[in-house]
Amino acid sequence: MINKLIEQIRKKQAPIVVGLDPMLGYIPKHILDAAFAQFGETLEGAGEAVWQYNRAIVDAVYELVPAVKPQIAMYEQFGLPGLEAFRKTVDYCREKGLVVIGDVKRGDIGSTSAAYAAAHLGRVQVGSASFTPFGEDFATVNPYLGTDGIKPFLDVCAQEKKGIFILVKTSNPSSGEFQDRLIDGRPLYELVGEKVNEWAAGCMGDTYSYVGAVVGATYPEMGRTLRRIMPRSYILVPGYGAQGGKGKDLKPFFNEDGLGAIINSSRGIIAAYKQEKYAAFGEAGFADASRAAVLDMKEDIMQALG
Amino acid sequence: MINKLIEQIRKKQAPIVVGLDPMLGYIPKHILDAAFAQFGETLEGAGEAVWQYNRAIVDAVYELVPAVKPQIAMYEQFGLPGLEAFRKTVDYCREKGLVVIGDVKRGDIGSTSAAYAAAHLGRVQVGSASFTPFGEDFATVNPYLGTDGIKPFLDVCAQEKKGIFILVKTSNPSSGEFQDRLIDGRPLYELVGEKVNEWAAGCMGDTYSYVGAVVGATYPEMGRTLRRIMPRSYILVPGYGAQGGKGKDLKPFFNEDGLGAIINSSRGIIAAYKQEKYAAFGEAGFADASRAAVLDMKEDIMQALG
Repeated sequence: MINKLIEQIRKKQAPIVVGLDPMLGYIPKHILDAAFAQFGETLEGAGEAVWQYNRAIVDAVYELVPAVKPQIAMYEQFGLPGLEAFRKTVDYCREKGLVVIGDVKRGDIGSTSAAYAAAHLGRVQVGSASFTPFGEDFATVNPYLGTDGIKPFLDVCAQEKKGIFILVKTSNPSSGEFQDRLIDGRPLYELVGEKVNEWAAGCMGDTYSYVGAVVGATYPEMGRTLRRIMPRSYILVPGYGAQGGKGKDLKPFFNEDGLGAIINSSRGIIAAYKQEKYAAFGEAGFADASRAAVLDMKEDIMQALG
Repeated sequence: MINKLIEQIRKKQAPIVVGLDPMLGYIPKHILDAAFAQFGETLEGAGEAVWQYNRAIVDAVYELVPAVKPQIAMYEQFGLPGLEAFRKTVDYCREKGLVVIGDVKRGDIGSTSAAYAAAHLGRVQVGSASFTPFGEDFATVNPYLGTDGIKPFLDVCAQEKKGIFILVKTSNPSSGEFQDRLIDGRPLYELVGEKVNEWAAGCMGDTYSYVGAVVGATYPEMGRTLRRIMPRSYILVPGYGAQGGKGKDLKPFFNEDGLGAIINSSRGIIAAYKQEKYAAFGEAGFADASRAAVLDMKEDIMQALG
């Protein structure tokens, strides 16, 4: 799947992932009204609104970007109907040829970690039949529990040709509370980065590993160091746009070959029509506003990379 | 909810939580057969089997224990029907008066963390209506992202009178890879413990905080230190039984008042009938075997605590 991701990034000339993190407050009134008319103001209604909103955005941007990253929390909050919208979104994006990164940040140990890996990247056996529960291509994983938590994901990835992105240095203001603490003179995130590099070495696609890392756009200097520590790993970079990261901050996350990083924007794209810059599209043109925001993001990044 | 947990522990004289972590391999053939006869060898069939298995175990043990801890990964692996079984299990356990600890180990930031908190401990607003998506009483949370990840959970807990257990020192062999690394001469888990203690101070129930910690039974000496660092926090202790922790290892996790810790056993109870010790119950008597295993666990712990 890392090979497909790179092929798609090259083909579309856009190291961009669209974060599908729908909040009801982002969804245009006509979509909400239609969903509530059909299902009422219920979890089913919310799930339907989320799904219709996502579908329109995906239709508008799928030719421009290689990948999407649905944030499962935004679906899980609507219970089972929300998770049904998550599953429909994953299926639809895969049909459209997009690589789907499930932003699930799961992390547990042993058979529990194996169950999460099966749920999101693999298959589960029921009697003599096997099923694909959620079917993403990549998942994000939390490293706090160590190798016992990562290994079951690597096994499923090897078998199913899927991949993971391990949290190394997150984009939020308080990420330093633990991640920046010095151990033998070096911050914890560097040690996690070294472990990612070890895990990555045994999990190679053609040119990059299918074990990647998450490093926030808000910390470009740390990104530079982590780029060196994990040369084989793709870096998934959140924090661009709404969280404050700019195009010029992104260069350190890329390798000399122009590859090695994929930049996420969520709100900045899916709720673009709410920004003054794209206000002319209006609520009815929300998906076209998202398309315009993707094109602007692409230009910003390509200019920064030179 | 921490008050209710303590009241139930006192009333039942058992600081025990039953881990509802069903694997299809644990479920007796007659339950699987009945579920597959109704729904086929499908995710729905697996969900039904899990639910019927849980219900029988809960019926057999609910008078003996204060709490259960369903591990959501074991349900998530069966997709939406699995998560429906999770929800049914949570509802049923609450009806039986049990405190439900959702072992979800979620961890994200800002609005995403708020969405997880709403999903598991709170309510979500849809138009003018509000819904309880999964409805656990406590959730386990991963600390790697720092305060930005924890704060939204604390807000929901305060509002809904719920609680969390934050991963501090996990029970698995490789937990030391990051958690034991020395920072200014002290292991990371102690620094996480100090943060838990800070968060806990602002979140008090009558005698204990509704912010607790997870510390593995497999590390009793570390448990002793963490007990001192987090005097107001309940410690949820996994790793007893199948993972190797013994009754005599548990004393350090408790405070002088005989409270402050709750010990989890999953496989050792729910799949007790597969152990030689309880083989006489047979597959048909699996729930009675679980009850016997709870009684033995209670005796082991009470003897160790003196």
